[in-house]
Amino acid sequence: MADEKFKRVAQICIVVRDIEKARSEWAKLLGVKENPISETEGYEVTHATFKGKPTKARAKLTFFPFENIVLEIIEPIGGPSTWQQFLDEKGEGLHHIAFQVEDLDGTLEKFGKEGIDVEQKGDYRGGCYTYVDSKAKLGCIIELLHSYKE
Amino acid sequence: MADEKFKRVAQICIVVRDIEKARSEWAKLLGVKENPISETEGYEVTHATFKGKPTKARAKLTFFPFENIVLEIIEPIGGPSTWQQFLDEKGEGLHHIAFQVEDLDGTLEKFGKEGIDVEQKGDYRGGCYTYVDSKAKLGCIIELLHSYKE
Repeated sequence: MADEKFKRVAQICIVVRDIEKARSEWAKLLGVKENPISETEGYEVTHATFKGKPTKARAKLTFFPFENIVLEIIEPIGGPSTWQQFLDEKGEGLHHIAFQVEDLDGTLEKFGKEGIDVEQKGDYRGGCYTYVDSKAKLGCIIELLHSYKE
Repeated sequence: MADEKFKRVAQICIVVRDIEKARSEWAKLLGVKENPISETEGYEVTHATFKGKPTKARAKLTFFPFENIVLEIIEPIGGPSTWQQFLDEKGEGLHHIAFQVEDLDGTLEKFGKEGIDVEQKGDYRGGCYTYVDSKAKLGCIIELLHSYKE
């Protein structure tokens, strides 16, 4: 049983069709700085799965760090993914809220007992991400970010 | 021309069909406290408009204050509103990001010049809120919260 306490929201994320355009509009309207756009790595690094199956899901990412939270903007660029599914079903919009967790396994077990299962997961250098399909219970997708210890 | 700088995200908001259920699930899964549910006031207090027309839009509200940000949960309970429109078009989900602004008129003027118009606005005791239809440019709705000076 996870005893993880969710005290801070680490990130909020918007999925868009054109990340260059969205980044430019955010920077202009809110008077904030444009940051670089990166691309997620290939399957050999991410080992990503979507609905339990390996996926070559790729995305472009950029971040706007506000004082208290990071806004992430994602443009899916190939492969089945939670991002592409969201775009197809709902159009552009706020996709998830992310929390940093230490006890990932315990947290996933607790969510699983409530019928909230993993929708997509993958590795990145230094950590991993897991999206859980909490839409029916919490009204939105939750992302669990987990950093590996050095 | 607004010189407003958007440094902090004040709130993120989820629109749901059943606020009691959503509040209970959030509290249980994330190990956070349930707060009271309130109702927005009548038109005589809110003077709300939606797409330029007076509306008797009402909603139930509850809040989960995290360390760095407030999560708001809204259930629309009558009258045309941005919340009901969102539920009808997209289903439950993350509806907007809110910023606290001092220069509301200047900010709205700047948004208007970029083709981002007011979608809904209304008063509450001590301040007012304005939702701008920034979906096409920013990928989501922005709420501008403005507190009246004492």
